[in-house]
Amino acid sequence: MRCDLVTVGTELLLGFTVDGNAAAAGRALAAAGVRLEAHATVGDDPAAIRAAVAAALERTGTVVVTGGLGPTRDDVTREAVAELFGRRLVRDPALVAALEERFGRLGRGPMPEANLRQADVPEGAAVLPNRRGTAPGLWLEDAGGRVAVLLPGVPAEMRGLLEEEVIPRLVRRGEARTRAGAPAGGGTGGQGAAEPASPPTVIVSRTLRTTGISESALADLVGDPAPLLGDGVTLAWLPGPEGTDLRLTAWDLAAEQAGAALGRAAAALRPRLGAWCYGEDDADLAAVVLEALVARQARLAVAESCTGGLLGARLTAVPGSSRAFLGGVVAYDNDVKCAMLGVSAETIARHGAVSEAVAREMCAGAARSCGADAALAVTGIAGPDGGTPEKPVGTVWVAAGWGGRVRAFHYTFPGERDVVRRRAAQAALDALRRALSSGGED
Amino acid sequence: MRCDLVTVGTELLLGFTVDGNAAAAGRALAAAGVRLEAHATVGDDPAAIRAAVAAALERTGTVVVTGGLGPTRDDVTREAVAELFGRRLVRDPALVAALEERFGRLGRGPMPEANLRQADVPEGAAVLPNRRGTAPGLWLEDAGGRVAVLLPGVPAEMRGLLEEEVIPRLVRRGEARTRAGAPAGGGTGGQGAAEPASPPTVIVSRTLRTTGISESALADLVGDPAPLLGDGVTLAWLPGPEGTDLRLTAWDLAAEQAGAALGRAAAALRPRLGAWCYGEDDADLAAVVLEALVARQARLAVAESCTGGLLGARLTAVPGSSRAFLGGVVAYDNDVKCAMLGVSAETIARHGAVSEAVAREMCAGAARSCGADAALAVTGIAGPDGGTPEKPVGTVWVAAGWGGRVRAFHYTFPGERDVVRRRAAQAALDALRRALSSGGED
Repeated sequence: MRCDLVTVGTELLLGFTVDGNAAAAGRALAAAGVRLEAHATVGDDPAAIRAAVAAALERTGTVVVTGGLGPTRDDVTREAVAELFGRRLVRDPALVAALEERFGRLGRGPMPEANLRQADVPEGAAVLPNRRGTAPGLWLEDAGGRVAVLLPGVPAEMRGLLEEEVIPRLVRRGEARTRAGAPAGGGTGGQGAAEPASPPTVIVSRTLRTTGISESALADLVGDPAPLLGDGVTLAWLPGPEGTDLRLTAWDLAAEQAGAALGRAAAALRPRLGAWCYGEDDADLAAVVLEALVARQARLAVAESCTGGLLGARLTAVPGSSRAFLGGVVAYDNDVKCAMLGVSAETIARHGAVSEAVAREMCAGAARSCGADAALAVTGIAGPDGGTPEKPVGTVWVAAGWGGRVRAFHYTFPGERDVVRRRAAQAALDALRRALSSGGED
Repeated sequence: MRCDLVTVGTELLLGFTVDGNAAAAGRALAAAGVRLEAHATVGDDPAAIRAAVAAALERTGTVVVTGGLGPTRDDVTREAVAELFGRRLVRDPALVAALEERFGRLGRGPMPEANLRQADVPEGAAVLPNRRGTAPGLWLEDAGGRVAVLLPGVPAEMRGLLEEEVIPRLVRRGEARTRAGAPAGGGTGGQGAAEPASPPTVIVSRTLRTTGISESALADLVGDPAPLLGDGVTLAWLPGPEGTDLRLTAWDLAAEQAGAALGRAAAALRPRLGAWCYGEDDADLAAVVLEALVARQARLAVAESCTGGLLGARLTAVPGSSRAFLGGVVAYDNDVKCAMLGVSAETIARHGAVSEAVAREMCAGAARSCGADAALAVTGIAGPDGGTPEKPVGTVWVAAGWGGRVRAFHYTFPGERDVVRRRAAQAALDALRRALSSGGED
């Protein structure tokens, strides 16, 4: 199965809105074995919409169109596509009733006539019920089997309709066509009539997440990835401020085969990554650390200077973090470091607030004042000001206390204020992850 | 001036990457008076790239293409577009030298032959130097004046080349065509030869930011916006978890007129919004609060329970925040609330940790322990667990201390854990903004 996507909205072309719908649709379609062949964005202009939908139907025979189904004058997708298919619009009484009921429930008085446009349906189109909003999805099919699916542009509504209504229909359609020996989706990827039907293929990925090591050092560890990957699996390197992800993708395999191929590739790759790898897919390092703490019945306190609360925010973003996270001190000002964490003013005067000695005292102070078994401290220069030749912007000290020992680490992070802070929080979490897994020894 | 955009990358179609380049390009072009007419995304496939670029040139005569200029086999944009223009690729000695110099500097040994592909230039193309990366931009123009500009897909490199190299050339080109009486950009928007040249028009916007009030209540305050806006200016409502933005956009006016029209509309609209409006454009509420504190020579401390550091993180995200922000306590655990903020265990037992009384004691404790003039406290139930019929998930108490008074506010925020936390941090900042502007009175 192949298909096209058209997203409609002048705001998208002006860059007022980032088009997250395209990525969400691409992911959902690929996971179901439907290959998105091309994506076009056009403004709220009937001629542009008609041209883009016509070109898409020409290419793959199947197009998902999002946006432009709302009640305002700008919303012209319904009319434009109906005209392209040579259908007139008919007001659907069930949709009118649903709109009026919804409007009445919000207590906003009589519904403006304009809203009724959302009850207009191209003759012969199937209505895909939208339980998250007012504009239903619409499924139009012409005599030649070409399909245009219209979905609202509101992200949650688009995603819900796509996954619950559209993809199952596309997949059933692809299966029926495969059985009938017709090319799936009007394209070139189908099965010849003489061949037995093949199961539909999917494109799926699995990600190994690393932190604390540069992409090039990681590449040296991995070496030539080809023998590790196996047929049909590729490897992409995705470096970011908080670490480098290695994404394995299985291309055009049946769902079961794809899962097995990814499993083999991941099993072959993980030993090369060693302890640099902290998890897979959407694993969050804070959640990994919290799990390790819970497993050891340990409780954590933090002391933050340059991260200013970011480390606590990351930990408490994890549901259930209260099982292992007690709290801590945001010690942005030096007097707060002394008063609330017991850092000695002399240590600050001698070594500076960004120093190993202060990080260690902050760490000990956090553990002591919160009554914690484990503690983390971060102090650094996030910039843009405050750097010196000896301690440039990006200088960060992290201290991690666990099992009666405090380990301190020094970094010089590249990047702007926000990036330095994010890297510092990630480095602190990683220091504790490693301390916990070494059982207090090293 | 009109133009098209083509973004190249199989990863974009699979949804592995959200296409932020399209929005960034749309914004930069619109602000310079270049209207993005349509945007297409295709995979790393020469035939698909050629078809999309050809369709774009047909439509507007000018196309910006991003992505597919890297050193790997997947990167085929250079070859595909050169073929479309009937040009062969020629290795540029200056680019080879620059690549070798850069490679040597990173100390990675001899450069692989594949990397030299980045020094290949379609015959007759202008090289746009890329000081942020290895792949230069390329400007191809055919005998008929049709232009394809190739830019790397790395966001910072794309944006830099677009703003520094491409847009100035496009604008000069548009001006030259307008003077010559030819349609700008090969499209229909140009001036007839008999008319005097008009200045180029722009599409620009100005945003008024509000918080603490629902979109519908705000709509009631504004009433009919039409008389406030003036000709050529529209209003868009953009509700989000942290407040509702009102975006004014001036369409197709000369730059000076557009600025004046936006200024008039903003001046007419702001009085309707009253104190709900805290700033314009990319104003950040944390920065607004910090400025107000600096103006009063006041220093702030925080006490956070459900936000767990988010409030401190937002404040310290602002460069220079140390002028007004001292720090505070992340009191996630009740014992930490008592030990470090002096909250009484009896108050917690009687009212619960999420209560007005505890918020007030946390606020007082933060001010006292940090020696601050102003203080904020947040305690709430972010979910997904911990809600009760009396205190459902989303229940939040905020206390704001300033000028010898502590004001407390109760909220029941809708949304998931992350949204409740973000709303709570925003509400706390807003409570202090209002307290500071009332001068301690109310």
